[in-house]
Amino acid sequence: MPELRRDPVVGRWVIVAPERADRPHALLRSEPDPDDEDGCPFCPGNEPMTPPELLVRRAQGSQPNRPGWTLRVVPNRFPALRTEERMTRSATGLYDSMAGVGAHEVIIETAEHGRALPQQTAAEVQELLRAAQERMLDLSRDVRLRSALFFKNSGWAAGSTLSHPHSQLLALPVVPLELQEELSGARGHFDEKERCIFCDVVAQEARERSRVVLETDGFIAFVPWAARSPFEVWVLPREHRSNFEQSSPAELAGLAQAIRLALRKLDLALERPAYNFYLHTLPLREPAAEWYHWHVEVKPVLTLQGGFEWGSGFFINPTPPEEAAAFLRQTEA
Amino acid sequence: MPELRRDPVVGRWVIVAPERADRPHALLRSEPDPDDEDGCPFCPGNEPMTPPELLVRRAQGSQPNRPGWTLRVVPNRFPALRTEERMTRSATGLYDSMAGVGAHEVIIETAEHGRALPQQTAAEVQELLRAAQERMLDLSRDVRLRSALFFKNSGWAAGSTLSHPHSQLLALPVVPLELQEELSGARGHFDEKERCIFCDVVAQEARERSRVVLETDGFIAFVPWAARSPFEVWVLPREHRSNFEQSSPAELAGLAQAIRLALRKLDLALERPAYNFYLHTLPLREPAAEWYHWHVEVKPVLTLQGGFEWGSGFFINPTPPEEAAAFLRQTEA
Repeated sequence: MPELRRDPVVGRWVIVAPERADRPHALLRSEPDPDDEDGCPFCPGNEPMTPPELLVRRAQGSQPNRPGWTLRVVPNRFPALRTEERMTRSATGLYDSMAGVGAHEVIIETAEHGRALPQQTAAEVQELLRAAQERMLDLSRDVRLRSALFFKNSGWAAGSTLSHPHSQLLALPVVPLELQEELSGARGHFDEKERCIFCDVVAQEARERSRVVLETDGFIAFVPWAARSPFEVWVLPREHRSNFEQSSPAELAGLAQAIRLALRKLDLALERPAYNFYLHTLPLREPAAEWYHWHVEVKPVLTLQGGFEWGSGFFINPTPPEEAAAFLRQTEA
Repeated sequence: MPELRRDPVVGRWVIVAPERADRPHALLRSEPDPDDEDGCPFCPGNEPMTPPELLVRRAQGSQPNRPGWTLRVVPNRFPALRTEERMTRSATGLYDSMAGVGAHEVIIETAEHGRALPQQTAAEVQELLRAAQERMLDLSRDVRLRSALFFKNSGWAAGSTLSHPHSQLLALPVVPLELQEELSGARGHFDEKERCIFCDVVAQEARERSRVVLETDGFIAFVPWAARSPFEVWVLPREHRSNFEQSSPAELAGLAQAIRLALRKLDLALERPAYNFYLHTLPLREPAAEWYHWHVEVKPVLTLQGGFEWGSGFFINPTPPEEAAAFLRQTEA
């Protein structure tokens, strides 16, 4: 059973999930395995290899957990957290722990094994975002869950073990450190200046233009000023929006266009790099806030984290954000 | 010229170092390059391939920057930071930056290309630690430098681009976030309880024993309660010590034994994994403190960081620390 443990000095939480050791390739070996389409648990015909569907888009008349779908959401077979756990908390001397209550779901984006996200249509990407939104709204009814992270790992170096296009959703019983730091930084700025710091960033980027990658209906994508890794791209709604779950269909369409175009540019410019993206939004059930602004962060995996990065929390980026942005702007995708 | 940039929301610093893009393999490709002993800049005879020695152990009568040495410290050819920069700070709208003032040095641990750290003698490992100590004492005379991180990347997946055994030292004009968080966590504990939290951790580990890996003269190594990755091992002096630079030769000997034995066990148990280690100690020139305790953190690279880890700051560890410790305890090294 998964367990959450807290580091007593820095307060960082870790999920100890022994079940995940059973999955194939749980521990890193030097090379990725060859792609195996026959045994792919996400391909049509192999539905019995996954737990039953939580959400599905399928042709009228087709049977649940059978072929005929275009998108499926299923529980992760090797979940990092489980909704079935009872919520318990305990301490042993200095050390705190918590039962691994949460949810870990997989969004299978398409029935086609080789149809990577950048090759999908804007309408398909919009369906993916709509599925994430729907699942977050559903999970937010469980009051034990305090936040949800929608994310994607694409490619072996980005932590993906299956090549069939999929994204993930993890709901947690705590607000994770990275989000907490953003929330508190944004709150501090608002308390001082009565302005959303992300709106200020959007305004400065739109004015300076040197880091802007693209713009779509209502969205802007740019390489952030202090990008941790080369060609990192952030996508934000231009207008102030704090809860992703409340997005309108038009907003999801604008976001889908922006993400798709950014990924296509990265694919062309960097020859299909491995990448991660994740969505930062307010914790579940929080009312709209003037001081926070949801956004998506896309990180191609082009450098490896070494002892310096682990030990300092610093990152070394060999590509100036302005150069990366100029290169992506001129890449026709 | 390298530049430090600060993220305006979370305050994370990034080093933008375009010079590093020129080094071979600056951007990740899918596989490590084959080991090339002939062109190795760290092998004897190839001294002209590195900048001149800052510190060296060599046979009497041998010439500087010529063969005959057993350990060399040289500036990194592709430094992330430089001492020659002038210290300047500036702001552009919301964004802060600072000149990339600092030092980036390489410790070539041995003249033998294939003599990896776990295969070195305890005396050799002690020489490495003594070199790090000497360089830190020397760098601490530059008042622009506020902290120094001694670290090692071993293996391609750990971010190493050269296989000849070497460690690194990076001195920074700021106290990095990871260390700041430890300092403030430890200070908070001391303010409340008048005890060093690391001394409390050592006492609890020595009492419970389930996570202890090994003990040497004056040192204890254990898998931490909230290990981020499988088989992570921390090495601490048992007695309270806050400044690594003030270590006695006997203390360096005890630490060398502990690190060497921990790495030998990891090598055997996990078939020579890639790994990182780094040293956390007080910022440069700080007087000894009752509330902080220096230590070394060793992280084998067995899992990859994905979108969940990047987006949340959480880590998923599939191997319970108690199981990892039991396995390492019984590995005869």
